[in-house]
Amino acid sequence: MKKDSLGIVHTQYLTFAEPPDTLQLKSGRSIGPVTLAYETYGKLNANKSNAILVCHALSGDAHAAGISKDDKTPGWWDNMIGPGKALDTDLYFVICSNVIGGCKGSTGPSSINPETQKPYALDFPLITIADMVEAQRHLIDSFGIEKLLCVIGGSMGGMQALQWASVYPERIIAAIPIATALKHSPQQIAFNEVMRQSIMADSVWREGYYYEHGQPENGLAVARMIGHITYMSDLSMEEKFSRKLKNENLSFQFKDDFEVEGYLRYRGYNFVKRFDANSYLYITKAIDYFDLSGEKFMSAVKKTAVRFLVISFKSDWLYPAHQSQDIVRLLKRKHAYTTYFDLISTYGHDAFLIETDDETRLIKNFLANVSPD
Amino acid sequence: MKKDSLGIVHTQYLTFAEPPDTLQLKSGRSIGPVTLAYETYGKLNANKSNAILVCHALSGDAHAAGISKDDKTPGWWDNMIGPGKALDTDLYFVICSNVIGGCKGSTGPSSINPETQKPYALDFPLITIADMVEAQRHLIDSFGIEKLLCVIGGSMGGMQALQWASVYPERIIAAIPIATALKHSPQQIAFNEVMRQSIMADSVWREGYYYEHGQPENGLAVARMIGHITYMSDLSMEEKFSRKLKNENLSFQFKDDFEVEGYLRYRGYNFVKRFDANSYLYITKAIDYFDLSGEKFMSAVKKTAVRFLVISFKSDWLYPAHQSQDIVRLLKRKHAYTTYFDLISTYGHDAFLIETDDETRLIKNFLANVSPD
Repeated sequence: MKKDSLGIVHTQYLTFAEPPDTLQLKSGRSIGPVTLAYETYGKLNANKSNAILVCHALSGDAHAAGISKDDKTPGWWDNMIGPGKALDTDLYFVICSNVIGGCKGSTGPSSINPETQKPYALDFPLITIADMVEAQRHLIDSFGIEKLLCVIGGSMGGMQALQWASVYPERIIAAIPIATALKHSPQQIAFNEVMRQSIMADSVWREGYYYEHGQPENGLAVARMIGHITYMSDLSMEEKFSRKLKNENLSFQFKDDFEVEGYLRYRGYNFVKRFDANSYLYITKAIDYFDLSGEKFMSAVKKTAVRFLVISFKSDWLYPAHQSQDIVRLLKRKHAYTTYFDLISTYGHDAFLIETDDETRLIKNFLANVSPD
Repeated sequence: MKKDSLGIVHTQYLTFAEPPDTLQLKSGRSIGPVTLAYETYGKLNANKSNAILVCHALSGDAHAAGISKDDKTPGWWDNMIGPGKALDTDLYFVICSNVIGGCKGSTGPSSINPETQKPYALDFPLITIADMVEAQRHLIDSFGIEKLLCVIGGSMGGMQALQWASVYPERIIAAIPIATALKHSPQQIAFNEVMRQSIMADSVWREGYYYEHGQPENGLAVARMIGHITYMSDLSMEEKFSRKLKNENLSFQFKDDFEVEGYLRYRGYNFVKRFDANSYLYITKAIDYFDLSGEKFMSAVKKTAVRFLVISFKSDWLYPAHQSQDIVRLLKRKHAYTTYFDLISTYGHDAFLIETDDETRLIKNFLANVSPD
């Protein structure tokens, strides 16, 4: 085992079993019992002041670091979390939970509806980024943590970090939103919408009530392929695939002739083994409805001393740098403590998962200057 | 009727009925009989020196200008073709034909296979951009035209213009490739591939043999939605839709809440009424396989006196300006007569269909300086 590895980790579960521990949702509905899958790394100190909450992106889960006890896979941000790493588990107590609406152990549309004893499917209520944060707040409360040292995340995880700063500024010291936005542009909504359309166009989807029959694999695979295009850049695709062919003999019958085609098909059809199509619908809608632009975020920032590190990546065309700069502009206008970097990378939106060396330097330095007040 | 309108036009058909008038394809196969649907505007002069060939893009057809006799729709480039317009029918004889592999009157996968008396479906042979041009050459021959004054087209139409310059430089005086490329980048291939995947993921596609049952409407609609995102720009979407909602009461059940969602659904499901899914597969593959980069085009340009006007649009991220600049660089290196403009527009790739005022100024001026030699 490498010195900086967390080794084997296992996922834990917190269930809010009874009122008032059901979750009151932004839509007006409430839901319960709610279970959150989560993992923790490092040790919570005596005065509970060293906790960092990591928030995952669209298809992420609670398994952010270490090697999963169950399937031996490394966590999705393992390069960032561990002894001596950016989120140094020798210093910090790191928490990551699967969002509600998800399908990796937290309550979502594939969970059993206690009223029917069948999966919720589309009876599952609308979920917002605010609801995801509210569920995380329950989890933080369960540890007796009054104030988080930091909330950090990329993409949808960054939206959660911004949401924390907006609704619970008194409960966090710092926020690190990476490769994210205060709201989706119509182009971002459009990409999410065609992914949803792809799922719903699959007749196997059955208006969402597919759980007895198996899920709409084709529609979900195509959705994921669309996603993968937007996560990479033109340049990273050029470097990885160029126009390389899989076979010398071209099939010309709509097989995957080019390597980039094979890659997309592989990633798309692998994804359906590990992700629920309805969760994809609910979570992408939550992202599209998220909107902290304008006065909403401004008025929250006004009353906060939250410190911000904002990071974007030059080749990220899905969450372009100008969206991070919009965040920074709002924060600076309110004289919030704000550091911003637009990192050089060819990896596109995926950079937040890949450019961990650069992120480590920035984040270590930032966290070293953020101490419990 | 407006003074500059061509009025009612009707589509004509040319069939290459017998060998040697079958079409020898790049794949090694041949096909016949081949029918080409085409329209002409203006009059061919006595020495047949005033002919301009217009090449259409992925979903275009022979009806480029005027009002269709059948369905009363204007042509897809009506603002560009007519009396006094960019392609001035008082001066020029303008020809536009539907590509082979298409579904708008030219032979394609939905045409009847003479061997089986059923639609070809996936028995239709592979089609390349070179084959499309070869079919057009038959059409040009049928008019007795030795030399075209100009070949012009945007997107895939631009590829055909480049192909003409590459294989028949002695038969054209000028070429105007607009918003196009010498070859697709892996990102462009990837977008075409997910569109194909969306069609093929639809169980109604039936491995291509769907003609007795109706076509894979859902898969084709989603493919077209993906296309529409790539044809617009982030900015043009912001101007057109921003985050405007269709209804005040949000449905949150995966309806089209945002205007941009409604637009995509409308365009997607409208498209299936007028386009064949298999044609979409064949034509996108032809585009992906097109590759005139490097020596292939260079060696053709070497022996040609073809004059070029190359046009790109600043907000076109599907066919970014650097791809047009690659064309220009090759041409300049061979001292070819080349004029290049990177036009300002917010419309993205659609700009070649929309920015007709700017295109008109450039093209009129260019054509005025191109005379039969």
